[in-house]
Amino acid sequence: MKKCRYAVLSTTILVLAALAVLPAANASESESYSDPTTNQDREVLFQVSTINALLLSVYDGILPVADLKERGDFGIGTFDRLEGEMVVVDGECYQVKVDGVAYVVPNNATTPFATVTFFDPDETVLIETANFSEFKEILETSFPSENIFYAIRIDGTFPYVKTRSVPAQEKPYPLLVDAVANQTVFKFENASGTVVGFWSPEFVDGINVPGYHLHFITDDRKAGGHILDLRVEGAEVELDLTPNIFMALPTAGDFFNIDLTGDLTADLEKVEK
Amino acid sequence: MKKCRYAVLSTTILVLAALAVLPAANASESESYSDPTTNQDREVLFQVSTINALLLSVYDGILPVADLKERGDFGIGTFDRLEGEMVVVDGECYQVKVDGVAYVVPNNATTPFATVTFFDPDETVLIETANFSEFKEILETSFPSENIFYAIRIDGTFPYVKTRSVPAQEKPYPLLVDAVANQTVFKFENASGTVVGFWSPEFVDGINVPGYHLHFITDDRKAGGHILDLRVEGAEVELDLTPNIFMALPTAGDFFNIDLTGDLTADLEKVEK
Repeated sequence: MKKCRYAVLSTTILVLAALAVLPAANASESESYSDPTTNQDREVLFQVSTINALLLSVYDGILPVADLKERGDFGIGTFDRLEGEMVVVDGECYQVKVDGVAYVVPNNATTPFATVTFFDPDETVLIETANFSEFKEILETSFPSENIFYAIRIDGTFPYVKTRSVPAQEKPYPLLVDAVANQTVFKFENASGTVVGFWSPEFVDGINVPGYHLHFITDDRKAGGHILDLRVEGAEVELDLTPNIFMALPTAGDFFNIDLTGDLTADLEKVEK
Repeated sequence: MKKCRYAVLSTTILVLAALAVLPAANASESESYSDPTTNQDREVLFQVSTINALLLSVYDGILPVADLKERGDFGIGTFDRLEGEMVVVDGECYQVKVDGVAYVVPNNATTPFATVTFFDPDETVLIETANFSEFKEILETSFPSENIFYAIRIDGTFPYVKTRSVPAQEKPYPLLVDAVANQTVFKFENASGTVVGFWSPEFVDGINVPGYHLHFITDDRKAGGHILDLRVEGAEVELDLTPNIFMALPTAGDFFNIDLTGDLTADLEKVEK
């Protein structure tokens, strides 16, 4: 009982701590990221295909990594045939395969689904001890709006990170919800590394992942994956407020013929957790 | 009864006529519009804000028309305070005000919601006699996919066009569904002019208008509006297949605080019809 009360109190304090950064964040917001009239090249979340196309087995790579890197130096995604988890950080693209190893990706590798941007942090939010759901809640309180995108980067040492990767799929491709049933899970304790990802508004449901979508890569860039669980301690979270999105849809292939009118929210929830 | 049967037969023939153009359309598709790896500057549907933000009264103009014209020479939208219907055609921007007159818009006018692209037709579809719902159905059968965007242009003489425009709103702004209750309706018979607009896939629900969204401007560019009803006869419909979308969200103002998580499909239906 006492332990429980402490946990609640701790969260409350952390929320208040996060709120304390808000005035500064709001004040700097109008200066720190550009309005749609000028220099938007770096303030764009660039996305290949849609999350629902991925849920419906559109796994053939359509965009070379070389081209993806021209649209951003930071981001996440997957690869041709759903082979592994993508982490783009500091302009380098890594592929965390199902063996848990992060490989540097050749420029001619392709992606069926990815999201990148040029990471220019606008705000830093300090979050003390928090589990994954506390972390998510606290960070959201620092957002000036829930109607734009946020690129999220945390460099540091994490008490706990649980990730997964998925093996390459064979045709006929299974649904994503079935493909991730074969995922391999990795657990890291006191791991130094970088959390890379995005928070997207609810209204991109079906197009990208509403809420958080985070990947991880270790400091030595040798391991990582799609984050399933996370604990932070003294995390300095860098946020890049991103008011623009560019979506490049496939111009041929399976994408043209699938039925994208259905609601796949339940599938997405299974896949992300 | 006989008349009714004729109508059905007529539609069937028209559908078959439309289907007859399909093989050519599909064959040319892969050559005629670029893939996401190269020269995408002109193959982008550029959009300001979201349709649900407009439904929720976000009417303050945020992007100058001068900047909008850099993103496309063709498109539709509205203006600051919801004042009138926008038609962008051949690089010129017109505002059809509630008096029914189309005015050339100064570059410093602003828009809270607009969609433009550079119009480079990929296909032409001939549609003989058809009412609005027949026209919509026939044209859709010529689409190689229902998962990308189409810019639609028809130059010609139309047996019937019914349009509307909406007056400027005062703060506190009413909902769009209430604002259009004060719309003024215009009817054109045997009118020469240009239909300008888009067809968008279902998955942009909440972001843009799924299906057709068409405006009209007369040949002399003196009148027009948002199309409520249309009859075509020997219409040569030009389609620009558009696989990319760039969405520029407001970086301040009412947009930051509205709740965009609701389903406004019913409101949109009322507003469009």
